[in-house]
Amino acid sequence: MRTGLYIGRFQPFHKGHLHAVRYCLSIVEQLIIGIGSALESHTTKNPFTAGERIEMISLALEEAKIKRDCYLLIPIPDVGHHQLWVPLVEILTPPFEVVFSNEPLTRRLFKERGYSVEKIPFMKRELYSGEEFRRRVVSGENWTEIVTKSVARFLEEKGLLQRIVELSESDKARL
Amino acid sequence: MRTGLYIGRFQPFHKGHLHAVRYCLSIVEQLIIGIGSALESHTTKNPFTAGERIEMISLALEEAKIKRDCYLLIPIPDVGHHQLWVPLVEILTPPFEVVFSNEPLTRRLFKERGYSVEKIPFMKRELYSGEEFRRRVVSGENWTEIVTKSVARFLEEKGLLQRIVELSESDKARL
Amino acid sequence: MRTGLYIGRFQPFHKGHLHAVRYCLSIVEQLIIGIGSALESHTTKNPFTAGERIEMISLALEEAKIKRDCYLLIPIPDVGHHQLWVPLVEILTPPFEVVFSNEPLTRRLFKERGYSVEKIPFMKRELYSGEEFRRRVVSGENWTEIVTKSVARFLEEKGLLQRIVELSESDKARL
Amino acid sequence: MRTGLYIGRFQPFHKGHLHAVRYCLSIVEQLIIGIGSALESHTTKNPFTAGERIEMISLALEEAKIKRDCYLLIPIPDVGHHQLWVPLVEILTPPFEVVFSNEPLTRRLFKERGYSVEKIPFMKRELYSGEEFRRRVVSGENWTEIVTKSVARFLEEKGLLQRIVELSESDKARL
Amino acid sequence: MRTGLYIGRFQPFHKGHLHAVRYCLSIVEQLIIGIGSALESHTTKNPFTAGERIEMISLALEEAKIKRDCYLLIPIPDVGHHQLWVPLVEILTPPFEVVFSNEPLTRRLFKERGYSVEKIPFMKRELYSGEEFRRRVVSGENWTEIVTKSVARFLEEKGLLQRIVELSESDKARL
Amino acid sequence: MRTGLYIGRFQPFHKGHLHAVRYCLSIVEQLIIGIGSALESHTTKNPFTAGERIEMISLALEEAKIKRDCYLLIPIPDVGHHQLWVPLVEILTPPFEVVFSNEPLTRRLFKERGYSVEKIPFMKRELYSGEEFRRRVVSGENWTEIVTKSVARFLEEKGLLQRIVELSESDKARL
Repeated sequence: MRTGLYIGRFQPFHKGHLHAVRYCLSIVEQLIIGIGSALESHTTKNPFTAGERIEMISLALEEAKIKRDCYLLIPIPDVGHHQLWVPLVEILTPPFEVVFSNEPLTRRLFKERGYSVEKIPFMKRELYSGEEFRRRVVSGENWTEIVTKSVARFLEEKGLLQRIVELSESDKARL
Repeated sequence: MRTGLYIGRFQPFHKGHLHAVRYCLSIVEQLIIGIGSALESHTTKNPFTAGERIEMISLALEEAKIKRDCYLLIPIPDVGHHQLWVPLVEILTPPFEVVFSNEPLTRRLFKERGYSVEKIPFMKRELYSGEEFRRRVVSGENWTEIVTKSVARFLEEKGLLQRIVELSESDKARL
Repeated sequence: MRTGLYIGRFQPFHKGHLHAVRYCLSIVEQLIIGIGSALESHTTKNPFTAGERIEMISLALEEAKIKRDCYLLIPIPDVGHHQLWVPLVEILTPPFEVVFSNEPLTRRLFKERGYSVEKIPFMKRELYSGEEFRRRVVSGENWTEIVTKSVARFLEEKGLLQRIVELSESDKARL
Repeated sequence: MRTGLYIGRFQPFHKGHLHAVRYCLSIVEQLIIGIGSALESHTTKNPFTAGERIEMISLALEEAKIKRDCYLLIPIPDVGHHQLWVPLVEILTPPFEVVFSNEPLTRRLFKERGYSVEKIPFMKRELYSGEEFRRRVVSGENWTEIVTKSVARFLEEKGLLQRIVELSESDKARL
Repeated sequence: MRTGLYIGRFQPFHKGHLHAVRYCLSIVEQLIIGIGSALESHTTKNPFTAGERIEMISLALEEAKIKRDCYLLIPIPDVGHHQLWVPLVEILTPPFEVVFSNEPLTRRLFKERGYSVEKIPFMKRELYSGEEFRRRVVSGENWTEIVTKSVARFLEEKGLLQRIVELSESDKARL
Repeated sequence: MRTGLYIGRFQPFHKGHLHAVRYCLSIVEQLIIGIGSALESHTTKNPFTAGERIEMISLALEEAKIKRDCYLLIPIPDVGHHQLWVPLVEILTPPFEVVFSNEPLTRRLFKERGYSVEKIPFMKRELYSGEEFRRRVVSGENWTEIVTKSVARFLEEKGLLQRIVELSESDKARL
């Protein structure tokens, strides 16, 4: 059985991420979904906690009828020094044969450690993006088309949109 | 749906842990299994990485026919200061209503934060223990009765018993 | 007796801060003054050490005839992850019933932990600001009206204005 | 005006500490009381938080009629590497001319940085000791003679003795 | 014998750095070359690891016929709080009498600790600069005149120029 | 040219270490000498700073007429999690082909990362040991035969033996 790794920050988990998970699962049988910057939250770029992101991803994948047996959710903290990041991932995850990523630094770091790294075809990249989502929430524009229904409901029920708005008014949240 | 939290170090995941998971799942529908001291490995007390522990737990729960939908595996790093540990757990996990633990400090810390904390009935505590397992491996005694078949197979195939023996010869691994 | 918490970076402690302390003490009997980013110093945004800020605050409050019994000065280090910051404050301070703050992130973090959070009426916000103070020092404009007499004397006697000027010439001090 | 520094862990603040504060204040006009290992709590050696220790010290010194103007309470976190500890103290405190300490490492570290270091005459050292206090609480012996009345009352009202007992039953709290 | 300290990030080691080393060695007999931000790598500002920088410096100084006996290469990690940085340098290096630096913050920090700090005459500062080197590599301009021959060869043989180009395409590498 | 790595704590650098360096240099042309636990000092097990250890090693190797060109001294800080330690070493050093070590954990960690690891023949292990050296200094026994002449002179001139004695009297220095 072949295992792949796909790491994102999922702030929030949107339809582009769902598309990527489906793509990866068309290539490998088992997918480790790494939740990056796991301890960050309450910043403009990382509004949600790892726990909240785990809930969103679980809801979205259940809605998409992706079975629990074919993926593993693992929070990955930042490590300070880029060169220690792949070794940290190796501590926290079962072994994997292939890494899916479009991010140049992520690709470089895994390649320097000898991993095989694959690109993921983008899907409506301008629309399906965490940055665009957060921008629309702050400016009061419609954001519902960016995420799946279950994630939209979760964000509204938990009052998490209001957090994004408040963080946007804080210099301290900008890092 | 009620959610519980059960945290252990699982060095390794043994039959006592399996018994505890079953007990918790007789009380709550959803169980968050926190893998404590997640970044520790290669010490006499914590020989296995979080990734290795995730594999062992998955194998044992599959062998026990516990469904993937009713539990969530989450690695929890240590945090240095005990008083920050429960808040760290809260970052990394979805919300939970009840904590299962027999460890006095763990119980105290969650209670001081207002959580409801339940004890777990022990099962052959002297035998089903990580310490006893590691002692037997080092002294060359039979350890197979302590873990499930799938975990025993995993440990042997990955050559992880040899690691425990080598760590026992190192002062540096003692901390 | 009611206790409040008021946290600032106090780089330096200016007349706006003094006004805020007076306001808080009109509402609570005991005020915990938290010195934020306590371990930061020698940066353009945080030129002074916690020790220097403790001296400035003590001098200004003495000059303003605010009694030592009604406030407590406590340095609060940064904690890396926002969600752990309120728990860190809770470790370092006696209990408090109300938090005074206008900063959106600070307000949000305390509210999410269940605290009552009050706004402080601003007083000449454009003038009484650490940023404006540091800008004037660097550009050689008059800054004395921003701080109290005792603080102005302290800064001059210790040669701390020269430090601000030198930091402004350093790229390294910018973050 | 001469300023001294006196650092302790104050787990809890006992009569020996009070005696030491009085001794220091017979030599210097202003005393900085540093609360060491400030972020530690909930361990057998460090059961109380810095906030709790601040409350105890304030109560004991008020009971002893020592004026608020002649001392400053400052929490000092541990720093990992001994050689960085004195520089950390220098960040967090106003300047001081003399250090009061009987602890060999503390004395050595301050002397290597050029400070004048004075010994404090011990008072009933076997009795007035945090270790003896905690031992008595755990074994159910009388501990009230070790601390002042106000501290005894505080510990009982807050239920903190029970915490010491529970920590003594935890392996995890031992480090 | 007089010892000096010269700290840089050396990303990469260029002809301006070589000129500075020669200048320092015209004043002191022994030079400690501190490799700053030693644990940083794979960022746009700090593309190379400390190990790679040690190799470049050794090659360039050998090419320049500077003897191994008159310098010492020591990696210096960042320390988080500026005020602890000089004490950290003191842990990692033998004693030195004079510091060579043009950087305002570095100069200030060493002066506040009582060190004698000397300026280094710049040499073609616009050309001989790490920033200019990295800019040229990314834009495909000629960069060979900025570094010595041995360093140019090293960078090419190890494929390190490609790393700079890839990092420039990554948002994540920007901080 | 073949490069080896030899890591020790060198508290202090003794004749057994010198013997080991000679042995390594009989097998490889270039030796990276890693100074482990580089930021530790002022503890009973690690009394000396990295800077002091660099001085001792340089003196002993000069006395032994080992040329500066064939070795590289690199301080290696501890990293908290064993599994990240080899990647940290890789950041700080040029590449090496073989690791010399008798320490079981060190051997295991490098082997798991695919390195070739060689043993070093011990020489009077009971006598030539940092532990035995420190024991003798504390108990006032003769220690001079354990280290080379130049190291003995250095320790006496710098007053570092007195530090070991004082640390032995401190509970705080024990961890």
